[in-house]
Parts: sequence; structure tokens; C-alpha cells
Amino acid sequence: MRYRITLSYLGTEYCGWQRQKNGVSVQQKVEEALEKLLGQKIDVQASGRTDAGVHAAGQVAHFDAETSIPSDKLPFALNTLLPDDVRVRDCEETSADFHARFSAKRKTYVYKIYLARHSDPLRLGRAVMVTPPFDAEKARQAAEYFKGRHDFKAFCSTGSRVKDTEREIYDISVTQNGDEITLSVTGNGFLYNMVRIIAGTVVYAGKGKIAAEAVPDIINSGDRKKAGKTMPACGLYLYSVEYDGF
Amino acid sequence: MRYRITLSYLGTEYCGWQRQKNGVSVQQKVEEALEKLLGQKIDVQASGRTDAGVHAAGQVAHFDAETSIPSDKLPFALNTLLPDDVRVRDCEETSADFHARFSAKRKTYVYKIYLARHSDPLRLGRAVMVTPPFDAEKARQAAEYFKGRHDFKAFCSTGSRVKDTEREIYDISVTQNGDEITLSVTGNGFLYNMVRIIAGTVVYAGKGKIAAEAVPDIINSGDRKKAGKTMPACGLYLYSVEYDGF
Repeated sequence: MRYRITLSYLGTEYCGWQRQKNGVSVQQKVEEALEKLLGQKIDVQASGRTDAGVHAAGQVAHFDAETSIPSDKLPFALNTLLPDDVRVRDCEETSADFHARFSAKRKTYVYKIYLARHSDPLRLGRAVMVTPPFDAEKARQAAEYFKGRHDFKAFCSTGSRVKDTEREIYDISVTQNGDEITLSVTGNGFLYNMVRIIAGTVVYAGKGKIAAEAVPDIINSGDRKKAGKTMPACGLYLYSVEYDGF
Repeated sequence: MRYRITLSYLGTEYCGWQRQKNGVSVQQKVEEALEKLLGQKIDVQASGRTDAGVHAAGQVAHFDAETSIPSDKLPFALNTLLPDDVRVRDCEETSADFHARFSAKRKTYVYKIYLARHSDPLRLGRAVMVTPPFDAEKARQAAEYFKGRHDFKAFCSTGSRVKDTEREIYDISVTQNGDEITLSVTGNGFLYNMVRIIAGTVVYAGKGKIAAEAVPDIINSGDRKKAGKTMPACGLYLYSVEYDGF
């Protein structure tokens, strides 16, 4: 039987989702918990890797296993075996042709910043401070330009080996709630560090370091150096993964 | 010159505000930073101790020092010497008869819970999970009964040596925002664990374990065993301290 699980995790202590030689990964923790629970070595495939320090509110993964534990009870059993910073929120039986990565149609990432002159200990590792003044409307205008299908080469960390750098952004928004600014981006896929570089560029627009209207030229240039800086991992959340027909 | 500072800290890694023989305190970190900055041993007095693991959004403290650094620049200088989880938000010169503890007139504490069936890694150490069903209106009704001047002996951890257990609660509220429930309590002072026991009692009412209307009898009984359990430290925040005439 193939199972689909939805996971939340705090990325702070992990080298990311994917197993690495040096460092503890979320994948390893989940596979260890499953092995302990079911007595079988189980391979867990997620919708994609998240980088070191990046959080997830709704990562999706699948695995194949034989068990008599009902799927709605599996999260409770697994969570007793997982560390506090990783939780299986949901589990359901799915069809054998569901694949967490290849069946994924849309992903939404959220990037959180807050406006302050001193960093906030209560948001330590959960959002990134940006000093005022900050024009959220300019940030919103800059974000708008990312909508649609573009070659995002300028928004991909150098050293990435991906050849096809075209991606489509379906939806992007910048919202302000008090001192908190949230960037939300939904697309068909994302290049290495793409959301963090988009966030850096949107922040530059909010800070007046670039004009919002400069974004199309930055995209067209394909030049990483023209885009904003890569924002820290701790402000980034994989918010949700969507599938069609599953 | 006497200085008044406002501090935020994440209590997770500390044995509380006050210096202890075994454990690292926030007071120690602040005094060490001041000594490093000003080259003098400095005694910092806060509005009160916060317990191990309890957070502060607006702890107030005072200290005496001679320095040519302008008070509005002191937070920036101190914050470079403080760990990430402690921040001085504000500093101002004050009169010699201001005392962070003895001049305090009102304190506001906030207790954060969230309703979920699985704990949320993204709120780990910042709020406490309560499983649904939960009737926020019943919790609100229970909270109302705490308003006013009462003997809070039933809401004080046994072992406390305080003799006068009368306190006044000026304001108390229970608000819901999505799955998040916030208890806010303003009073002239609080006994050991008082807010955490009030929170436990309010949660019992929300869970239907006690009737909201039972609260006056619990208060009058003076019996710790009749009140709710002491909720975990990590959901508690010292939100603000107010002074009159300073």
C-alpha cells in the first residue's frame, strides 16, 4: 500500500529534508521512525528537498509499506517516535501511481520578514529582521512582475547544475500585518534558492535599493548579480504542495 | 545616572531572569554585556523574576552607570554583546527614585495555547498545544471571574513562602485567532506560578473539565488542588510592565 503523508518541521536543527553524509536530515528522522514502528526499512520520497534551516508547514511525502495500523492512526504512532521539531500531520492511503515529487503540480513557499530596529528574540529562527523604513507597497509592486512564465536564471544560485531554468509563478503576494511582512509564492517548481533570491529582490524594492519597475530587466538579464541577495534560510517555509487528481 | 531598559528574551535556554548558582540566567547575560561595554561591574534590577523557560516581550529593568554613550545608542551597543535570544529594545535615562521592581504598578502576562491534534513544530517552545474540542466562550467566562481583588492562595504553587496572597487583577481576556487562543492578564502583582495556574484553570473550563461558574468557589476554597494544573513555562510571556509618573 502506498501512503501519502503531510509533514511540518522546524528546519533549524536539520541539514534539510534530504539525507546527507554530514548532518542530520528530516528524511532520516522520518525513515527511522517508520522503521521502528513497522519493522521494515522504508524509503520516504518527499515533494522535493528543502535546504538546511528551511521550515515546512506542509511538506508532502509518500512511502510504500504493509501494516495493519489504520492510516488515520499512523500520525499519532509516528509522532511518538519523532523528535518534537518534526510532526506528521496527516496520513492517507493513496494510489500506486501517486508520487510526492513527480505528481506535484503546484508548490507554495512563504517568506517571513519583520520590520524592526532590534532583532526580536521571540521570532529568532522563524523570521528575518529588516530595518525600517520599508515601503510594503513598493515591495508588492516588485513582486507582481514575477508572475507568469519566465527564465529565472538570475534567481538561481550560481553553481546549480539545472539546465532548464524556466519556471511559472501562478501567484505571488506581499501582505503586511503590523510589523510583519509575508511574501507568498505559488509556482510549478522552484530553482535552487529561487524563493530566497526573489525575497531578497522584493526586500530591495521595499528598501528603495532598486525600483520595483527594474524587476523585468533583472529577470531578462539572466544575471544573478543583478538580483537581490539570498535571504537567510530561517525565514523560508514550504507552505503547501498541491496535486491534481489525487 | 539611572537607566531604564526594556528587554525581550526567549526564555528557553535560561534558568529565568534571576541569577542562580546552577544555570545561566538572563540577568547574568545582561550584566556581563554591560560590564564588557562600560568596564564597570553593574547590578541590573528587573521588575521581577521570570521563571525558567518563561519568555519576555517587555521586561523592564534599571541600573546605575556612568557613561558617555547616549542612552538611545546603548541598546545597539549592548545587543552586539548579547546572545541572539536576549535583546535590549529600549533604553532611557530615568530619575534616581525609579525602581524597576518597587515602582511597578501593573504587569501584563500573556499565555499562548493552540488547538490541534498534533503538536506544531513551528510553535515549538512558543505556545502549548491543547486538543480540541475547546469552547473558547466557556474559557472566556471562566477568566472573567478572576477580575478584581481576591486571595489567590489556590493559584499559587505549594512551597511558596509568600504570606500575603491577596492580589488584584485589573483586566483579563481570552481571545481566539484561528487555532490560537491567547489569555492576557493584567494585575498589580502575581504569585509564584499564578498565571500558569489561572491558564490551567481557564483551559479546564474550555475543555469542559470544570464549569466556568465553579471558578469563584475554587478561588474561595484557597485550595491549590481544586484549581487547574500549572501550564508549561514555554507558553508564558511577560508582556509589559507599567509605571505611574515615570
